[in-house]
Amino acid sequence: MAIITLTTDFGQKDHFVGAIKGTILNHVSEVTVVDISHTISPFNIQECAYILKNSYHYFPKGTIHLIGVDSELSPENEHIVVEADGHFFIGANNGIISLVTSDLNIDSIMEIILPQDEIDSFPALAVFVPVACHLARGGKLEVIGRPFKNLKESKEFEPRITNDGRTIIGNVIYIDNYGNAVTNIRKTLFEAYRNGRDFEIVARTNKIRTLHNAYNGIINYELDKGQRKGPGDALALFNTAGLVELSIYKSDLNSVGGASTLLGLNYRDTITINFL
Amino acid sequence: MAIITLTTDFGQKDHFVGAIKGTILNHVSEVTVVDISHTISPFNIQECAYILKNSYHYFPKGTIHLIGVDSELSPENEHIVVEADGHFFIGANNGIISLVTSDLNIDSIMEIILPQDEIDSFPALAVFVPVACHLARGGKLEVIGRPFKNLKESKEFEPRITNDGRTIIGNVIYIDNYGNAVTNIRKTLFEAYRNGRDFEIVARTNKIRTLHNAYNGIINYELDKGQRKGPGDALALFNTAGLVELSIYKSDLNSVGGASTLLGLNYRDTITINFL
Amino acid sequence: MAIITLTTDFGQKDHFVGAIKGTILNHVSEVTVVDISHTISPFNIQECAYILKNSYHYFPKGTIHLIGVDSELSPENEHIVVEADGHFFIGANNGIISLVTSDLNIDSIMEIILPQDEIDSFPALAVFVPVACHLARGGKLEVIGRPFKNLKESKEFEPRITNDGRTIIGNVIYIDNYGNAVTNIRKTLFEAYRNGRDFEIVARTNKIRTLHNAYNGIINYELDKGQRKGPGDALALFNTAGLVELSIYKSDLNSVGGASTLLGLNYRDTITINFL
Repeated sequence: MAIITLTTDFGQKDHFVGAIKGTILNHVSEVTVVDISHTISPFNIQECAYILKNSYHYFPKGTIHLIGVDSELSPENEHIVVEADGHFFIGANNGIISLVTSDLNIDSIMEIILPQDEIDSFPALAVFVPVACHLARGGKLEVIGRPFKNLKESKEFEPRITNDGRTIIGNVIYIDNYGNAVTNIRKTLFEAYRNGRDFEIVARTNKIRTLHNAYNGIINYELDKGQRKGPGDALALFNTAGLVELSIYKSDLNSVGGASTLLGLNYRDTITINFL
Repeated sequence: MAIITLTTDFGQKDHFVGAIKGTILNHVSEVTVVDISHTISPFNIQECAYILKNSYHYFPKGTIHLIGVDSELSPENEHIVVEADGHFFIGANNGIISLVTSDLNIDSIMEIILPQDEIDSFPALAVFVPVACHLARGGKLEVIGRPFKNLKESKEFEPRITNDGRTIIGNVIYIDNYGNAVTNIRKTLFEAYRNGRDFEIVARTNKIRTLHNAYNGIINYELDKGQRKGPGDALALFNTAGLVELSIYKSDLNSVGGASTLLGLNYRDTITINFL
Repeated sequence: MAIITLTTDFGQKDHFVGAIKGTILNHVSEVTVVDISHTISPFNIQECAYILKNSYHYFPKGTIHLIGVDSELSPENEHIVVEADGHFFIGANNGIISLVTSDLNIDSIMEIILPQDEIDSFPALAVFVPVACHLARGGKLEVIGRPFKNLKESKEFEPRITNDGRTIIGNVIYIDNYGNAVTNIRKTLFEAYRNGRDFEIVARTNKIRTLHNAYNGIINYELDKGQRKGPGDALALFNTAGLVELSIYKSDLNSVGGASTLLGLNYRDTITINFL
């Protein structure tokens, strides 16, 4: 059964998502529709790319990913379908798809050309859904458009290596549901420069000297409970996306706060790793 | 496969939605359940009707729409099923269904009469779900109740034409996820009175003299980027529901704000269109 | 078709839920995945248990319930599967499952032992999903682990009977989407001690002398509308979970407020019932 995922900034309240799902079900009888997220910050290219990049690859090959963020057609924002890594990405040429597929071999990029009456304000419904349904029914990419070459590149923050390889300067690229601050510093980059040295991670005035593989890596379970670190303590780890992440152990953003609020970390803030 | 949609004010956290889905799956093996919205403002008839009216018709004919807003049975709030436009609407007789179906030919209205032990506080589960499952299995409407005539009318704000046809006075009927202010002024009404005249849309102290078909209609892509209008500029458009809508281009309610906050527009506020 | 439910504190925005659903669909072709809740307060054992306990039993026997709250493996937080009441619960041994199954006969408890490369920070994906998929394909429990005996008990607030059976002292255990305050006082306990006496429910400075079976139990529909109680009035009822609940009729937490804000009731607050 075909799978269509939805990643949008439509929110959870309005009729937009219902309209899309109804239309899909109206045109394809055998299909599984999965919400990846509908609470992308409006028009936020980087955030949408981060979330889709970290979820799409868990789906089976052949999955169709519909992106409903900044979708309006313009001379500078074409409607496109990109086939890469066995997945189909349908959206506007606004940088999201190029960020999601930046590490992949791209098999095909098509500009969507549909016989449309007129431009409207909800192209995710009027354009992306028919294309998704076409692909879900096993239709060919070639039918819905023409080859396209100008995939818009979006600047991703990249960590810089300075100080003769003794310092990595990265950035916060995402704050998650717990207030954890995810950086763009990859484990592979860190390991490539570390050379067995000790290190300190500097986040504003905080310094952390250990990187764990799990949040509870800071807990020494051989100590009595009163002597252990625990909820409220700061830590750093390699998360499952392979990125350095700063966290407050068992944080709750809505009550005591998380790394974002307690360490004062926002999107784009600098995180420095010094090898000692 | 039968489709049941859910439109409720139950929120996304509590057990209510899970209880309903579990019960449906317990009684019908082949069914697709689609969430339209669970974040209707509690007991808000108008809001629920707006969202359902703008999503139901995208679903296939035969879809069953369960409405979980203000559902408690009382002598003034019967439990009903309305068949209209090939769709089934199950809910209380509180005005929502009459608002949703106000432009439709109604084929059937039944009052639900189930052999129930006692009245409880969760009739969406105890009453609407069994009825939805009955219909999903292809059961007849006649079995679950008796014909009903007193569909409760709910007052919808209607635009007024004044000043010898030179002025349309409408209202904001919905604020969407982006802060866009949707009015009750239909494109068809606007066109019927326009007669080729110029116009100004007055929203508090703001005046807008153009109506687009898409949000980016305000952008002149032939200009250099620095000279164009762009994010933060106010605009008006006919949205995909055929209604006049006021928007701030690429607004984010949680950061810079949207039309609702930046233009100071709330539900029920007056929007005036003067033909010049 | 197998059913897997998800109850987590992952939130609705991040990639976590999408990653889980994608992986499930990648490993089991015929499966229905149902979200019970993803907005459990982070690491909140009691809240998760309350929501799951009040939803799981509506699902068909054989349903697999994946719990993604406080999941990290540690010497004190084993990964377990519990079979009870015909349902499977997969999660960490942190008290949630023991709270959910506290009234049930437990058929089996297994500690999950998977051949894993290394511990990571997202065990709901790395461990619970493979186990859920194994069960969804009809696999045996025995294959994924070994029998386990030390199900962690979590303290549930229990009402106390004092004053020679004239007083029940309970607590608020949950605040729902409407601001209703659910207590741990069961209808069965109340009835067992009542002995036909009148009573008053004391919530801070408020006293309520009636318990209804529905929210609109406070409305006397024989009175003219102007003379009735209505929106804004406090009431108490036995909710559908069989618990005493305090409510403000037709409350909206985000505008006028609900029982939690208007009566000043928080989680754990004392609610007293005095028999007169």
